[in-house]
Amino acid sequence: MGKKPRNAITPIRTDDFPEWYQQVIKAADMAETSPVRGCMIIKPYGFALWENMQRIFDDRIKEEGVQNTYFPLLIPLSFISREAEHVDGFAKECAVVTHHRLESGEDGNLVPAGKLEEPYVIRPTSETIIGDAMSRWIQSHRDLPMKLNQWCNVMRWEMRTRLFLRTSEFLWQEGHNAFETAKEAQEDSLKMLEAYREFSEDYLAMPVITGEKTADERFPGAVATYTIEAMMQDGKALQAGTSHDLGQNFSKSLSIKFQGRDGEEEFAHTTSWGISTRLIGGMIMVHGDDDGMIMPPRVAPHQVVIIPILREGQDEAVLSKYIEGLRAKLKNIGVRVHIDNREERTPNKMWDAIKKGVPLRVEIGGREVEEETLTYVRRDIGKDSKTTCSVDDFLSSVSGVLDSMHDDMLARAKSFRDDNIKDVDSLSEIADYFSNNANIGFLRVDTSIMDLPNFDDTLKSHSLTTRCMPFADDGDKVLIGKAY
Amino acid sequence: MGKKPRNAITPIRTDDFPEWYQQVIKAADMAETSPVRGCMIIKPYGFALWENMQRIFDDRIKEEGVQNTYFPLLIPLSFISREAEHVDGFAKECAVVTHHRLESGEDGNLVPAGKLEEPYVIRPTSETIIGDAMSRWIQSHRDLPMKLNQWCNVMRWEMRTRLFLRTSEFLWQEGHNAFETAKEAQEDSLKMLEAYREFSEDYLAMPVITGEKTADERFPGAVATYTIEAMMQDGKALQAGTSHDLGQNFSKSLSIKFQGRDGEEEFAHTTSWGISTRLIGGMIMVHGDDDGMIMPPRVAPHQVVIIPILREGQDEAVLSKYIEGLRAKLKNIGVRVHIDNREERTPNKMWDAIKKGVPLRVEIGGREVEEETLTYVRRDIGKDSKTTCSVDDFLSSVSGVLDSMHDDMLARAKSFRDDNIKDVDSLSEIADYFSNNANIGFLRVDTSIMDLPNFDDTLKSHSLTTRCMPFADDGDKVLIGKAY
Repeated sequence: MGKKPRNAITPIRTDDFPEWYQQVIKAADMAETSPVRGCMIIKPYGFALWENMQRIFDDRIKEEGVQNTYFPLLIPLSFISREAEHVDGFAKECAVVTHHRLESGEDGNLVPAGKLEEPYVIRPTSETIIGDAMSRWIQSHRDLPMKLNQWCNVMRWEMRTRLFLRTSEFLWQEGHNAFETAKEAQEDSLKMLEAYREFSEDYLAMPVITGEKTADERFPGAVATYTIEAMMQDGKALQAGTSHDLGQNFSKSLSIKFQGRDGEEEFAHTTSWGISTRLIGGMIMVHGDDDGMIMPPRVAPHQVVIIPILREGQDEAVLSKYIEGLRAKLKNIGVRVHIDNREERTPNKMWDAIKKGVPLRVEIGGREVEEETLTYVRRDIGKDSKTTCSVDDFLSSVSGVLDSMHDDMLARAKSFRDDNIKDVDSLSEIADYFSNNANIGFLRVDTSIMDLPNFDDTLKSHSLTTRCMPFADDGDKVLIGKAY
Repeated sequence: MGKKPRNAITPIRTDDFPEWYQQVIKAADMAETSPVRGCMIIKPYGFALWENMQRIFDDRIKEEGVQNTYFPLLIPLSFISREAEHVDGFAKECAVVTHHRLESGEDGNLVPAGKLEEPYVIRPTSETIIGDAMSRWIQSHRDLPMKLNQWCNVMRWEMRTRLFLRTSEFLWQEGHNAFETAKEAQEDSLKMLEAYREFSEDYLAMPVITGEKTADERFPGAVATYTIEAMMQDGKALQAGTSHDLGQNFSKSLSIKFQGRDGEEEFAHTTSWGISTRLIGGMIMVHGDDDGMIMPPRVAPHQVVIIPILREGQDEAVLSKYIEGLRAKLKNIGVRVHIDNREERTPNKMWDAIKKGVPLRVEIGGREVEEETLTYVRRDIGKDSKTTCSVDDFLSSVSGVLDSMHDDMLARAKSFRDDNIKDVDSLSEIADYFSNNANIGFLRVDTSIMDLPNFDDTLKSHSLTTRCMPFADDGDKVLIGKAY
């Protein structure tokens, strides 16, 4: 038998971050690539995380009076082409449905048959088909605001894909709101961005920078795109959610009109905003370590895993009963708990809990049963956090422990991010900084730099993009970095 | 102004049942047809109903240890063709993706470009792609049972579509389980059918007959298909959910193998089972009346609607405060409540509540405020159920009133159904019965009748199908009727 590797994940982050990322997903059993080009299979442990995220954010948007709906998967070509910039932005990555049945071909294999008069694209996003419905549903200012959302799958045919971060099919929510005035639409897009920031920081423990996208990075057809940008542990940026003020661009091309308070016909002002399964990739790259995933406690599929430690001569029934009692009590106070009852060696169970990033690992053996205690370890700290306490103490402290873990994870990620944002003043400083591969993170620079003739070329030659103009800097600065 | 029509829906059920159905959906604002051929838009009120159904049944399947997942929307042709009967069953109704981008054509219009080497179909169901994953995930009997489910959209290109009942795209859950033995697979498919029966009767108040499908009506590739069949108010059948014992058909064609307890390699035994947005169509046709929808209380988007009745000279703030207090108390005890605060005439609000089928309509005016009472009406009974009681009495009785309404709706539907099932003995009786258009419902006949040479022709010439061989008759009888 070889020597036990120091870490559960090979390679470690500093050796090969992209490959480490794939191995973390595999070790945590969250997702895998599928036989369908660029599409992923979200496995039960990954999907349970998404479900928790969905329920939390769904409640949040319902607080805003947003109503869930479901619109068709397929979008007629004539719809997607109505907004000129919009179709330019998506035409290169649309899955196109051209036939509606299969027949046996000459070689006996199946071939497409029943050609459609007008092809459809699988929705890359639904502004046009939802906007078309709004044009029928909205007549008067009394019908406004109209606030709709759907949780669904979308397709954008990607050439280079990566689990969760960039897949041809992904899951998301897309909100589509319509208002009487430009002011209301802008306020809505900013309010929903703030909801994204809160969700990301308060539930995913992932700090984000809020700001406006530069003109080049705007959503095709938007007047303004607002974004939450997160920094991964390799210093790259992840656009983690966007909210668009669409002004009257879509209402004009889709004819979303209403009779205003003065009796005049006006075009509505619309917004759209979305977050997706991409956030899961962000959490992995912000929180994971060389032993695998670390799940943010508030969305973790299991907040506590209990590992029974049965030694020879012990009574299994007594141990099981003790553990079952604990499980029931934890469930009762709203803690998501899992008992690892597999026929598997204890060290393997411990490593699996580590790789899956379960926030608290509880170990219970004969001594714990006798003394009515338990022993637990916090995933983010490891063995230094090992604590043995009475069951009652655990029950009264567990939610506090999970909260502390959340706070620590957020603070750690925030301090890493802040340490890796540097202020510079010139294009040559940008070029110099990123010429050294050891340098990571974002550079913050005056927005006036974007007017320099060499700006675009400098960014391009170092694979850089503008991430956003942070609200915190009143829009005077722009952040520059590499991005996923 | 014309005379007020006697009923809110035109036509009434007895005049034109299919058109009545469409008008009920429209009047309740649940869904509408979309510009995409055969696809529907599920509007907020319809989607809220689906969400309630989803949450309830999702909890139920999780109790069985089923885990949610997400598999790709697209299925390679090579996958769907692996199970011969399966592909025969679905080839005629597959939406086929053949290209992955759009280009400007010669006339300036967009045309499909980037032809795919292998086309994909949009999933009509996911046995093949999930089975392929299972063939990789299952190695040993220790990996079994494997129980997976997904809530998703599917497409079956339908020529004649009808909102909720038969649309080219619909939403559903599809469970896919794998077992060691044939016995376990059969038990699972029967257990999940029973879960469907419970869900339909205990939550949707829709009585169903459980039984096995005849060979002709089996799911393509199944060993046995079990079904829940409901009778609509026009006497037609609705297949409301099916559960399939797939035996080893899919495991053999997809290579789902495992090392058994004796060390030998064996093929798994699989099942699949699904319910869909079609159930909403069933609820409308079982419960609706000539005034519109009647929502089963346990899944109703709003269980209670409160209509403020403000008369001249009354203090609006006092009324609002009273109603807001009631709303909070109802919410507190878990009742879904909606206040109709629109600027709209009171009679219109009342009719809207009726058409939407809200179980309890609460009216509160000045007198109610003064006397600390409220007046409510049960949707299924109407004005004869009008009751004025104290707020406290309402709070303590409301869940009981909703339960009684559920029980009454179920009993009413059951007695209608049972009154419309007749026993017959011969093919000529079947032909005679359905030759009279005034006759509706199901005929129950000995299964031996299916062996008669003229059986298929007789059914065909009267647009009849076998619905199922009910478990209640030990499989000795078969039900025959018209179907949606």
